[in-house]
Amino acid sequence: MRLFARFTQGELRLTRIEAFSDGVFAIVVTLLVLELRVPVLKDHASVAELAHALIELAPKFVSWLLSFIIVCKFWLNHHHVLGLARHADYGFVWLNSIFLMFQSFIPFPTALMGEYVGNPLAVSIFGAVFALNTLLFIALHAYVVRRLIKHDHAAGRDPHEILKGFIEPASYLLGAAAAWLSIYAAFAIYFITPLFYITPPRERGHAPA
Amino acid sequence: MRLFARFTQGELRLTRIEAFSDGVFAIVVTLLVLELRVPVLKDHASVAELAHALIELAPKFVSWLLSFIIVCKFWLNHHHVLGLARHADYGFVWLNSIFLMFQSFIPFPTALMGEYVGNPLAVSIFGAVFALNTLLFIALHAYVVRRLIKHDHAAGRDPHEILKGFIEPASYLLGAAAAWLSIYAAFAIYFITPLFYITPPRERGHAPA
Amino acid sequence: MRLFARFTQGELRLTRIEAFSDGVFAIVVTLLVLELRVPVLKDHASVAELAHALIELAPKFVSWLLSFIIVCKFWLNHHHVLGLARHADYGFVWLNSIFLMFQSFIPFPTALMGEYVGNPLAVSIFGAVFALNTLLFIALHAYVVRRLIKHDHAAGRDPHEILKGFIEPASYLLGAAAAWLSIYAAFAIYFITPLFYITPPRERGHAPA
Amino acid sequence: MRLFARFTQGELRLTRIEAFSDGVFAIVVTLLVLELRVPVLKDHASVAELAHALIELAPKFVSWLLSFIIVCKFWLNHHHVLGLARHADYGFVWLNSIFLMFQSFIPFPTALMGEYVGNPLAVSIFGAVFALNTLLFIALHAYVVRRLIKHDHAAGRDPHEILKGFIEPASYLLGAAAAWLSIYAAFAIYFITPLFYITPPRERGHAPA
Repeated sequence: MRLFARFTQGELRLTRIEAFSDGVFAIVVTLLVLELRVPVLKDHASVAELAHALIELAPKFVSWLLSFIIVCKFWLNHHHVLGLARHADYGFVWLNSIFLMFQSFIPFPTALMGEYVGNPLAVSIFGAVFALNTLLFIALHAYVVRRLIKHDHAAGRDPHEILKGFIEPASYLLGAAAAWLSIYAAFAIYFITPLFYITPPRERGHAPA
Repeated sequence: MRLFARFTQGELRLTRIEAFSDGVFAIVVTLLVLELRVPVLKDHASVAELAHALIELAPKFVSWLLSFIIVCKFWLNHHHVLGLARHADYGFVWLNSIFLMFQSFIPFPTALMGEYVGNPLAVSIFGAVFALNTLLFIALHAYVVRRLIKHDHAAGRDPHEILKGFIEPASYLLGAAAAWLSIYAAFAIYFITPLFYITPPRERGHAPA
Repeated sequence: MRLFARFTQGELRLTRIEAFSDGVFAIVVTLLVLELRVPVLKDHASVAELAHALIELAPKFVSWLLSFIIVCKFWLNHHHVLGLARHADYGFVWLNSIFLMFQSFIPFPTALMGEYVGNPLAVSIFGAVFALNTLLFIALHAYVVRRLIKHDHAAGRDPHEILKGFIEPASYLLGAAAAWLSIYAAFAIYFITPLFYITPPRERGHAPA
Repeated sequence: MRLFARFTQGELRLTRIEAFSDGVFAIVVTLLVLELRVPVLKDHASVAELAHALIELAPKFVSWLLSFIIVCKFWLNHHHVLGLARHADYGFVWLNSIFLMFQSFIPFPTALMGEYVGNPLAVSIFGAVFALNTLLFIALHAYVVRRLIKHDHAAGRDPHEILKGFIEPASYLLGAAAAWLSIYAAFAIYFITPLFYITPPRERGHAPA
């Protein structure tokens, strides 16, 4: 209980938390490209061999694209949620750090799915990791709404806002399950899911931050 | 149509978008050096062998230099365009994210051209990627000018400003085409193209931001 | 002595030091994931082989988790200490740079322990590096308290605050020693130690920065 | 001449230039650790083999340490020089970009010297790259002093300030030359040189920025 009490202390400015988070987001999306390794050719000058090797990289390009879009979606929603908070306490800092930890983990399942696109375990791990990331983000959002919300934002909130958010991790888990039946179905679900959350929920009667 | 309407919402401060973008730009230019791998020598103490190995790295140094300069040019123009906007909406954020996605892709064609400089496909992919990046930047610029421009900048604008910008991607594509005839011609075009856009267009009668 | 005098000069704004430090922290935690390499499979489609390979990565996942949490703890406490300072002098900048140097070193012992979890030397180096990092942080903290503290924070300070901090490096060294008897004991100590310092010490009668 | 005139245009805020530069500095120093690869052991549990392998990494540790300290020195002096400027023009942005390009190059000569410490060419390239970086920094400094200096800093300046700076690149080149006679002499010079420039020059009668 004393440990819990310590987390509710602290009154940190949001600027350094934003700077640290933006750094992690920016590095994660940029590191994704490191998995796109230059293919090894026998004949360096062969156009046909290079074209063939690049086509074989297609699953890696698709994984990269998916992860980039989803991390940007997280970044935008993170921006929105921090805009709702009046300051941060230590509990928020640690929730945010654990959220960022799993954001920084994303290059691993991305590379795994890109490498073993025909392996249902690799494809379903991708969905499971994004489901976990979304759950952590919902926890962050809920923490801000319950404890740190700006006073002028507290009134007009949709009470089901947090609850609605659970559709997203459920959808990623559906994709993860679908991977065992059809890789294509899993990819389709992974592509469609972020589109529904591509902008933060509308604020009612408030100028968003 | 409802999806489109959501993009015109949002009124985000530009500071975090700048921070995220600057992070991506900074990481992209710095990651480029990772492709300059230390050569493997048989005789560790041999000056002649090391000198020979470094000379063989020349195409990688040239690719690195080209990409560094062009990304800095994008950064400077990005800075200029964000200085024209009064705020950002979700449409801008997503256009910017897609632009940054292809900026973060740049280490791949840079490494590809550095590795297979004698392969016309590798050299022309480099030009094609920069043409795509320039087109995305033009879209970003046009979006700001049409929807988000600061009121005191709206008046004195050159109506052909956006149109003139298309010369740049056309020039990169010309270089990509030239690669099939002469690698040297392609490199020359890749070098000259950014020089014409090395500073943002002059503002008429306004102190630039 | 003249060299020493130069260090007490300078009156730098803290914002760029924060930006540089936050950049290093953010990159360190995100680079940690690069050690989690995609395993090489003989049969790309084999679920059993992939599951087995991922289980074998467990020590790397644990090392990654530990280092991530500890670096975040450093970040939070660094944030706290910079909040106490009214400005920075060159001595602070250099102490901070040396602290960041060993923060940026963390991916190496993390990878070493992840790779050779059964090697007591690898496991004890991990603890020794974190002990060194904590000592450097204590030096940074002491420097701020003695030379740069904000006037309204100077009064109510716990005179044993710095001294208490030495428990933490001692505990990491205990873990490093325990590694020679039992790897599990070392891991347990490495996990428990940061939990006691997971929030900065309470300020007495001051709104923390 | 028209190209030159364009460079003197522009009146950019320094904040984004600082953010981009700080990003590059932070990434460069942190990437340096990636060259410290975990050694490959035959017997994973052998303490003696691991100890031996780590001792063999000593030249890489020394190279890493040297580069980290020197890049931090550049960061601190860069901070100082930007504090003298009232704003930036396009010429400054491009000089800064070229300076950052060679800062981002530093991991390559660092890795080269770490790998081939017994090769005089590898050791002298290290010194040559730092000489080049210092010359670019002097150019940046001179540009600010001649064109962009804050009005209240312009008066009390030491007219030989820029000239004195040339001792530093000369010293790195001396180290590069010494590498052909004795590796130890070169290392000694590389270590001593940055110590003389470890703090920016004293401002006369001005509160430094």
